[in-house]
Amino acid sequence: MLEKLFDPASVAVIGASRTEGKVGRAVLDNLLESYSGRIIPINPKADEILGLPCYPTILDAPGGAELAVVVVPAVLVPDALEKCGLAGVKNVVVISAGFKEAGIEGSKLERRCAEIVKEHGMRMVGPNCLGIIDTASGLNASFAASMAKKGNISMMSQSGAICTSTLDWADARGVGFSKFISLGNKADLSENDFLLEMEDDENTAVIAAYLEGVKDGPKFMEIARKVSRKKPIIVIKSGRTAVGSRAVSSHTGTLAGSDEAYNAAFSQSNVIRADSVEQLMDLMRAFSSQPIPDGRNIAIITNAGGLGILAADACQFAGLSLSSFDESTIEKLRSKLPPASSLYNPVDVLGDARPDIYGFAIETILDDPNVDGVILLTSPQAMTEIKNIAEVVAEKCAHTKKPILCSFVGGTRIEEGEAILNRHHIPNYPFPERAVVSMAALCDYGVMREHEYVLPEKFDVDKEFVSSLLKDAISNGRRTLGLESFDILRAYGIPVVETLNVKTLQGTLDACENMGYPVVMKVLSADISHKTDVGGVRIGLENADDVERAYLTMMSDVRRYMPHAVVSGVQVQKMITGGKEVIIGMNRDVQFGPLLMFGLGGTYVEVLKDVSFSVAPVGVDVLKKMVSSIRTYPILTGIRGESPSDIASIVDTLCRVSQLVSDFPEILEFEINPLMVLPEGQGCVAMDIRLTLGGE
Amino acid sequence: MLEKLFDPASVAVIGASRTEGKVGRAVLDNLLESYSGRIIPINPKADEILGLPCYPTILDAPGGAELAVVVVPAVLVPDALEKCGLAGVKNVVVISAGFKEAGIEGSKLERRCAEIVKEHGMRMVGPNCLGIIDTASGLNASFAASMAKKGNISMMSQSGAICTSTLDWADARGVGFSKFISLGNKADLSENDFLLEMEDDENTAVIAAYLEGVKDGPKFMEIARKVSRKKPIIVIKSGRTAVGSRAVSSHTGTLAGSDEAYNAAFSQSNVIRADSVEQLMDLMRAFSSQPIPDGRNIAIITNAGGLGILAADACQFAGLSLSSFDESTIEKLRSKLPPASSLYNPVDVLGDARPDIYGFAIETILDDPNVDGVILLTSPQAMTEIKNIAEVVAEKCAHTKKPILCSFVGGTRIEEGEAILNRHHIPNYPFPERAVVSMAALCDYGVMREHEYVLPEKFDVDKEFVSSLLKDAISNGRRTLGLESFDILRAYGIPVVETLNVKTLQGTLDACENMGYPVVMKVLSADISHKTDVGGVRIGLENADDVERAYLTMMSDVRRYMPHAVVSGVQVQKMITGGKEVIIGMNRDVQFGPLLMFGLGGTYVEVLKDVSFSVAPVGVDVLKKMVSSIRTYPILTGIRGESPSDIASIVDTLCRVSQLVSDFPEILEFEINPLMVLPEGQGCVAMDIRLTLGGE
Repeated sequence: MLEKLFDPASVAVIGASRTEGKVGRAVLDNLLESYSGRIIPINPKADEILGLPCYPTILDAPGGAELAVVVVPAVLVPDALEKCGLAGVKNVVVISAGFKEAGIEGSKLERRCAEIVKEHGMRMVGPNCLGIIDTASGLNASFAASMAKKGNISMMSQSGAICTSTLDWADARGVGFSKFISLGNKADLSENDFLLEMEDDENTAVIAAYLEGVKDGPKFMEIARKVSRKKPIIVIKSGRTAVGSRAVSSHTGTLAGSDEAYNAAFSQSNVIRADSVEQLMDLMRAFSSQPIPDGRNIAIITNAGGLGILAADACQFAGLSLSSFDESTIEKLRSKLPPASSLYNPVDVLGDARPDIYGFAIETILDDPNVDGVILLTSPQAMTEIKNIAEVVAEKCAHTKKPILCSFVGGTRIEEGEAILNRHHIPNYPFPERAVVSMAALCDYGVMREHEYVLPEKFDVDKEFVSSLLKDAISNGRRTLGLESFDILRAYGIPVVETLNVKTLQGTLDACENMGYPVVMKVLSADISHKTDVGGVRIGLENADDVERAYLTMMSDVRRYMPHAVVSGVQVQKMITGGKEVIIGMNRDVQFGPLLMFGLGGTYVEVLKDVSFSVAPVGVDVLKKMVSSIRTYPILTGIRGESPSDIASIVDTLCRVSQLVSDFPEILEFEINPLMVLPEGQGCVAMDIRLTLGGE
Repeated sequence: MLEKLFDPASVAVIGASRTEGKVGRAVLDNLLESYSGRIIPINPKADEILGLPCYPTILDAPGGAELAVVVVPAVLVPDALEKCGLAGVKNVVVISAGFKEAGIEGSKLERRCAEIVKEHGMRMVGPNCLGIIDTASGLNASFAASMAKKGNISMMSQSGAICTSTLDWADARGVGFSKFISLGNKADLSENDFLLEMEDDENTAVIAAYLEGVKDGPKFMEIARKVSRKKPIIVIKSGRTAVGSRAVSSHTGTLAGSDEAYNAAFSQSNVIRADSVEQLMDLMRAFSSQPIPDGRNIAIITNAGGLGILAADACQFAGLSLSSFDESTIEKLRSKLPPASSLYNPVDVLGDARPDIYGFAIETILDDPNVDGVILLTSPQAMTEIKNIAEVVAEKCAHTKKPILCSFVGGTRIEEGEAILNRHHIPNYPFPERAVVSMAALCDYGVMREHEYVLPEKFDVDKEFVSSLLKDAISNGRRTLGLESFDILRAYGIPVVETLNVKTLQGTLDACENMGYPVVMKVLSADISHKTDVGGVRIGLENADDVERAYLTMMSDVRRYMPHAVVSGVQVQKMITGGKEVIIGMNRDVQFGPLLMFGLGGTYVEVLKDVSFSVAPVGVDVLKKMVSSIRTYPILTGIRGESPSDIASIVDTLCRVSQLVSDFPEILEFEINPLMVLPEGQGCVAMDIRLTLGGE
């Protein structure tokens, strides 16, 4: 709990000003407008500002303050914070800019501020932010142009301007907030702290965020996973593309991780990702006012056939079903609706439908057990009584536990109706498609919040062996490993193909005899990168004769093609047939750490990029979904009468890789390519592995 | 030209009424509001309505009327039209509903109306429509709630309610129209007629349409192709999904073609397809007011870093580039912008930027030759002078030939600025992403309109041979063909693999000797559908011995597995190796006719549905694009050092198939599967063909 941050008994404004247009004045005005606690302006050049006694420093103010809002120039901020600490201030909001976002000097200054805050046991919002708002306590410690309306949404944003725009947008639509936090550079408090704060905040039902990055990826996932079971978390994450993430780093100095990692992390922690600010707002409205539906069967009611069709299309695209009504529902509709109406979903009450017909249709359809939610569409046609229809909708909405989302489509002629819907907190979307997408998000969340988190499995592995092997390699300055990589997999219970490096013909023959035929033979030489091109690979060797002939011709071929290559021997490998090649990879994301990748081998990965991702450590449920979510998954379940592959063994291997890369952060990159997957029940075998180690 | 439809000297309203709330009154009111010609109410029960002399029938009205608007009940419409014809009316607008959309009886009535109209040489809009509007002539022959503002957009819609919503939406944003047409059931006049009408209409610069289907697909493509070179055509086509298209048929009785066919047809005729009504409106605004940019290099100017990042992301997703400014531009910006500004694209003028800074930045950036268009973003921050900024934007916009699209993001605090932008016809989008998508559409159209239509090639083929072969098959009641299919391909210059059906071992040996080895042998039997399962396929036969052994063992295998199968012989085929399998298919779309399909064979088609479409007959330019647009195209150009496939031969085959299926509508379905494509320069060979014929 961030004690006294949102409901302090007193607030000091360090850098308060009486000059209109200055931030120090705007903050003071905002506090004066709705905050009932003590307000203490701090400014060495004034005795009084706006009727309030003013002090040169916070140390001079009798009784100090629980919260300090800092608006002095960046270079003066460390000193101001130091004084806050000495004066016993609990929390500070640093609005001043000129820190990490401004370059190296600013970064130093920011680190200094964070240190001071920590030394004194204070917590800090910002720097480089707009401030914070709490509508319950009446606190507006920001230079926002207006106070937020009261509501149940808590929003945080890494962009002050997006705070401003959102507040203004919401105000015009009657959308209210509980807490509003401009995160700024997040030198101390970040989204993670506020997620925890909002989890148990009784005034918060919906959490929304504009983020350019997260401060601590794994922590974010852990917290979001927990909080999202109680309240929906809707996030827009910008800087998704190369150009976007370049712009991010010059904005708040945030280092953006890969968009794939964010997608995986959000999905694993049940965070709802909005694709645009508009969608963020659309979803905020739906979640803040409507119940979560029990299922995905939706009814569309419209007075305009065309709008109904557009909504029906949108439902299919969004993965929603159109309800099939009970026969009794249809009969009831038939009894009152005009003959030309469409009684089946979408229900068209026709262009001249009056409010009572709307009300009857809504009520009848809401009563049908096959209906989980309603999309209500209205075009302001010649006979349409917009105002009365909106009132009927509001009345029906008050008596149902199913969500209703509206789209009254028009301009001036729908304004009055829209105002009524706004007043009753029934979201109205300018066009049907947006209502449908919002409904789908409500449905998705209904599934998400029921989902029990599955702990990553902990296999009984030989961690010590791997640990000493890696330590040894790193201390010898080796960044990649040879056959020892196979031992690492074995230590973690991942089946690997029998493989031996041998130096002589006799050694080769013995090795093959031991492992059994058929075998594959490859030349071993640090000088040869494309083995196939120099005759350095032989497959399908069935017996000792084959092996001897292959060994001798290979040696002569290699000598002929690359006379100067130093050959250290050959590698023999048991040949595996009848399997399908898949790839399991891992690299480390700057924000979330180990990012696992899965896909089918060959062109599917190379050309189609048909791969899926998850952040490790990760449970078996997510890994199952990861495997089944690639587009080429049917190839694994078996097409054209083929027998299915051993998918369980892929998932098991992914679980073990998840554990391995989580146990050893020094493994920077990792790839099993290919993992040969045999038919169901026969497991899988790692055929080759690539592993890159980090420094000491 | 639809003479006197939009500017008649006189308009009769058949079914005029003085009763408020009736359509016959609404139409009369609308005419009285802005139309300066003669208005003639027709109603047998009144002598005068709203001060106008009223007549029992149009035949009683002295001088008749050039246009008649019909609002009487459906069953009375044929008689009313008959009288219009006798009275010399040129055009009719039938608003009355109860026709094709209402079932079989309605369909009959509609056909009857179309016949009457034709007999009398009249043209008809509707039935089941809202009416038509022409702002130039002041004609509002509709029951829309209000007259459209004057503007340069002409819109047609198959849904009357979407007309109403659009008019109301546009009115609130100062968006004006030239012509507004509610198409209704399109019993006579359709989108094709109005496209031609708008092509040369000097008041129309942009054509927009909501369609549930097109009346004549090939004609639509021909007309749209021509018109889109002069004016952008933006279409939203609903009923894209199964549920949506079911809803379409109960709305206007339109039979929806496949969405793939619409996509192909729109793309081939340079129609811009909007994904939602919202996008239709967004694009209408951009096209109606902004010039078409010369290229895709866009500058973003913002007073809010966060908005800039969102726009940068959106640019990348939309395929736009961020301009790299000239060094002189950067220097100039540096000279006046505050030090903390970002001078590189996106340009952040900072939250406290005043109008003069905005103006300076816009002007400087517009001057840079690397900038083709500007996206201007504004958040209403504490110091932001929205009104003055909007005025500066308007001024700069008036002096440039580059498009500027704005996104002032907020609610009440941006209203004043938005009103100024609306007044100056500078589109303002509520969120940055929509401005970016609209800019991309402007850029796309710039490329489209320059594109010269390439005539489908006409190869010298043996059409008569195919014609008689097909005629023969059909008259014998055959729906599929055997080896004759290969002859059809040969007649159209498509290489086919050498294939022979033979009855005896000796015949087989002779055939193989003639075609050369290696060969493939397949059992021929109408009773065996899965040849491989009964040992009925042998590949890679290298010489006469192989063939003899294969023949004998195949016969005994088949006898053992399927003792009752009647075997008529074997098929021998030259074996082709070293190629890649592709598929060329065709089926007939209800709206557009022959729809060609192309894709790589096997799992790529079966699992990934990685295919592309085009409507035949079609030129080589589109077919080239069709081949290169599949996701797996790199497999054809060669990956992993493979040599490229003979892509030119695929395109050539597609051209010839296009001609074949256009020449013979009796070919209902057609598939070459596989077409074996050899390395570049070596052509391709059809290995198998499936062909279904239609009835007599």
